[in-house]
Amino acid sequence: MKTISLEQIRSVLPGIDVVAAMEEGFVAYSEGRCIVPPVGELLLEKGEVHIKYGCIKGDEFYVIKVASGFYGNAALGLPTGSGLMLLFNQETGELATILLDEGHLTDIRTAAAGAVAAKHLAPKNVSKIGIVGTGVQARLQLLFLGGIVMCRDVLVWGRGAKQLEEYSAETSLDTFSIETTTDAARIQKECDLIVTTTPSKSPLLFFDHLRPGTHITAVGSDTSEKQELESGILSHADIVVADSIAQCLERGEIFRALSDGAMDANFPIELGKVISGESAGRTDSEQITVADLTGVAVQDIKIAEAVYRELRSEV
Amino acid sequence: MKTISLEQIRSVLPGIDVVAAMEEGFVAYSEGRCIVPPVGELLLEKGEVHIKYGCIKGDEFYVIKVASGFYGNAALGLPTGSGLMLLFNQETGELATILLDEGHLTDIRTAAAGAVAAKHLAPKNVSKIGIVGTGVQARLQLLFLGGIVMCRDVLVWGRGAKQLEEYSAETSLDTFSIETTTDAARIQKECDLIVTTTPSKSPLLFFDHLRPGTHITAVGSDTSEKQELESGILSHADIVVADSIAQCLERGEIFRALSDGAMDANFPIELGKVISGESAGRTDSEQITVADLTGVAVQDIKIAEAVYRELRSEV
Repeated sequence: MKTISLEQIRSVLPGIDVVAAMEEGFVAYSEGRCIVPPVGELLLEKGEVHIKYGCIKGDEFYVIKVASGFYGNAALGLPTGSGLMLLFNQETGELATILLDEGHLTDIRTAAAGAVAAKHLAPKNVSKIGIVGTGVQARLQLLFLGGIVMCRDVLVWGRGAKQLEEYSAETSLDTFSIETTTDAARIQKECDLIVTTTPSKSPLLFFDHLRPGTHITAVGSDTSEKQELESGILSHADIVVADSIAQCLERGEIFRALSDGAMDANFPIELGKVISGESAGRTDSEQITVADLTGVAVQDIKIAEAVYRELRSEV
Repeated sequence: MKTISLEQIRSVLPGIDVVAAMEEGFVAYSEGRCIVPPVGELLLEKGEVHIKYGCIKGDEFYVIKVASGFYGNAALGLPTGSGLMLLFNQETGELATILLDEGHLTDIRTAAAGAVAAKHLAPKNVSKIGIVGTGVQARLQLLFLGGIVMCRDVLVWGRGAKQLEEYSAETSLDTFSIETTTDAARIQKECDLIVTTTPSKSPLLFFDHLRPGTHITAVGSDTSEKQELESGILSHADIVVADSIAQCLERGEIFRALSDGAMDANFPIELGKVISGESAGRTDSEQITVADLTGVAVQDIKIAEAVYRELRSEV
């Protein structure tokens, strides 16, 4: 048994259709074909560790992912987040491989899920993409959207000029025409496909600025405390989609809107059901749609399996 | 980062005082110095997977252990149990190493805990050791008892002649004089230090045969269904010791005896408190003592740390 390094993982990712893998995963999840136990959590003095694990019934592997965030690491010159994924045979329990991805596959599967949401919910002709935030997800989400929509005009919001300059200078995003702003209201006034990627604990986008025909994918909030969208946005949306309804009832934008009593009329539908066609996605260009992505273990399972398939002969 | 193989682990184990490491672990646990979240569990069609994880506060590492049992493996010529342990830095979350122990360290730490129990609870002069069962723990428990007690006379109970012959032929136990029996009552009539190691779901040892001065360590039952000791044994014991009271209220012999309403008078005390001297262990040679060991993550933490210390320069 050999481990697989981040370098090896990076080398095969371009050949993997991660968006398609995420679609398959979400459909399997919504069809009840997954075993996904509650997330394990270890809270330490300097950081927190999450263990996500499970499998798609009848697949070859089950997957255990360890992901951690240690927020003092930046001061030590170390990355804040880290992680790895373990693949085991579902028939025998044998360890197949260890993907030492250092959290990269989580970043990738999260960005690919954003592309899935846009594919099924964004208006047909996107006029401008709005990105809220300037971090890793703010970059990766845009990169993956490039494979889904034709639009190349982008407006990025960030808190500071330095982060916005760094974002604009990102070479992987060279095919986009990127404008920046520190005025979040501009995002809502100018963009019809918006992705929010910050760990904000108070809303950055508001109902007052909401325009018909907008799709918003909210990626940043994955806890009960974080919130990027004012609850009024969800209560006035025509369609609200959750990656996992069970999980979104406990954390993320939907949890917040429900807590505010703002979502009585439009209970969320699940992304996997929109993908499979069991639930309708966007049906006209004036609808307002919101996707709340909190991250589900089935995404880890699908991306780990896909990477291993590419590298199987080498380990 | 290099992984550590079972072969490397086996090569350093003889130089590690695992019994002392377990004692330190149990004391830390009973003093509330550990973070040990609930065990994660993945139940598959052909097997089950347990994730035990946690840390001793202020230690260098936190540990995540994955252990599985796939009961159809024997028919495929594969071991039933498997597993690995991951060590991460408590300050930064960085992965330190992966111990590919295939479940061996769990076997060893379980056997060493039996030695700890005997050290603190067995009568001073053991006349005969009784082993109930013929599997891996039945062998390892005796091996570790050899470092704790002078007695070399052993009576082993098993269900079949073949297993008993194999047990007697075990070369690692050559220093013992081993007699075998298929009559479990003989174990209680002849032995004063007894270790039970089977996955039985109905009692093998009974109150009627219980003699003063006996110590029993029950290792086999680690679920709410398994039971090797008739509840009357626990209700009539002078001292009942649990590796973890919290865990023994939910599984193992103590759970069963409590469910039967048989333990009102002698609520268990915790092994770590007996080791530290906070609770009294055996105080006279006529007492009947029982230790119920269900396995605690702190044992995994301590043995993983000890092995890594020995091999640190090589990984």
